[in-house]
Amino acid sequence: MIKYPTGQGSNKSSQKPQTIFGRRGMSLEKMINLSNQYYLNSEIAVVHKKPTPVQIVKVDYPNRSHARITEAYFRQPSTTDYNGVYQGYYLDFEAKETTRVNYLPLDNFHQHQVQHMASCVKQKGICFVIVSFVNLNRFFFLPATIVIKYWEQQKRQGRKSIPVSTFEKRGFEFQPNSLPLIPYIEYVKSLIQLKQKR
Amino acid sequence: MIKYPTGQGSNKSSQKPQTIFGRRGMSLEKMINLSNQYYLNSEIAVVHKKPTPVQIVKVDYPNRSHARITEAYFRQPSTTDYNGVYQGYYLDFEAKETTRVNYLPLDNFHQHQVQHMASCVKQKGICFVIVSFVNLNRFFFLPATIVIKYWEQQKRQGRKSIPVSTFEKRGFEFQPNSLPLIPYIEYVKSLIQLKQKR
Repeated sequence: MIKYPTGQGSNKSSQKPQTIFGRRGMSLEKMINLSNQYYLNSEIAVVHKKPTPVQIVKVDYPNRSHARITEAYFRQPSTTDYNGVYQGYYLDFEAKETTRVNYLPLDNFHQHQVQHMASCVKQKGICFVIVSFVNLNRFFFLPATIVIKYWEQQKRQGRKSIPVSTFEKRGFEFQPNSLPLIPYIEYVKSLIQLKQKR
Repeated sequence: MIKYPTGQGSNKSSQKPQTIFGRRGMSLEKMINLSNQYYLNSEIAVVHKKPTPVQIVKVDYPNRSHARITEAYFRQPSTTDYNGVYQGYYLDFEAKETTRVNYLPLDNFHQHQVQHMASCVKQKGICFVIVSFVNLNRFFFLPATIVIKYWEQQKRQGRKSIPVSTFEKRGFEFQPNSLPLIPYIEYVKSLIQLKQKR
């Protein structure tokens, strides 16, 4: 499903994967930003991380050209962090890192994000999450529909997390070995193919 | 092209337009945000304004739950202000208000915004601007391709603005008389129809 430019498959674990540049210690966000940059420069897709929403309370103007914010607070985002366009298709995703080894706790998401995913899915957007199990060194793409399903189960049945086995069954695993480190457009292509088959 | 839910056309100027609620003094941004909310609640489209990008320098933590930003600066946005999804299509637009009466000065845009529009157009996104000539009480949608064309002419021929006549010829005029005040989805539908004809 995921084609690596070097021809390396993510499941070739017999060989130590060739690392193009050291990504050790690099956050998932940093890897995604680099991948966004790669896709933008290659004219493959246009995806940006949204700025952190901040409630600005006080601004000083020491001089006309230089405003300085002196009091502000973080606000909860009303959407996911990333969106953009690939060949006319609307893309929308969220990235999560967890140190848990058996599951992703649902409290990594908040109500607004899941609501936003549900709205995007209804509008036929291509919507998914990218999850890094830091201590396992395992990376997954998972359709937003699965996150929404588990979120609903949380409300009804008190479910608190998405197990790794669900990522294995319903998601797609990859390793950030080559450029772009997070090859989400390959995953997007497979989601578009699935849609067209239905 | 634009269908108003009340059946009022924007060119019916013989009658005083019926105003659903007073929009006088309401900024274009405010009107767009209300329209986004309307489309979201009606499940017609999912479009959000991106947060203002801020470079955060210093954060105080008076207590664990309450972070207070004490030094930050405005950054120049690398994209347009609005994007989202309508029926799977990627939408992207920018809003500008001007007090000029004969033209929109090109310095209302900055290089990054126009570059972003060009990238989105290449990726087959639906990309346009919404312009309010405040003192004329005239409102237009204009395809991003026109803005990009004038921007290129600025670099090559020193052009400094887009004349109102271009908005009249190449854009679509509307009046914010009914809900949603800025009926951009009707414009989007017409752009999609145009694309499909080509």
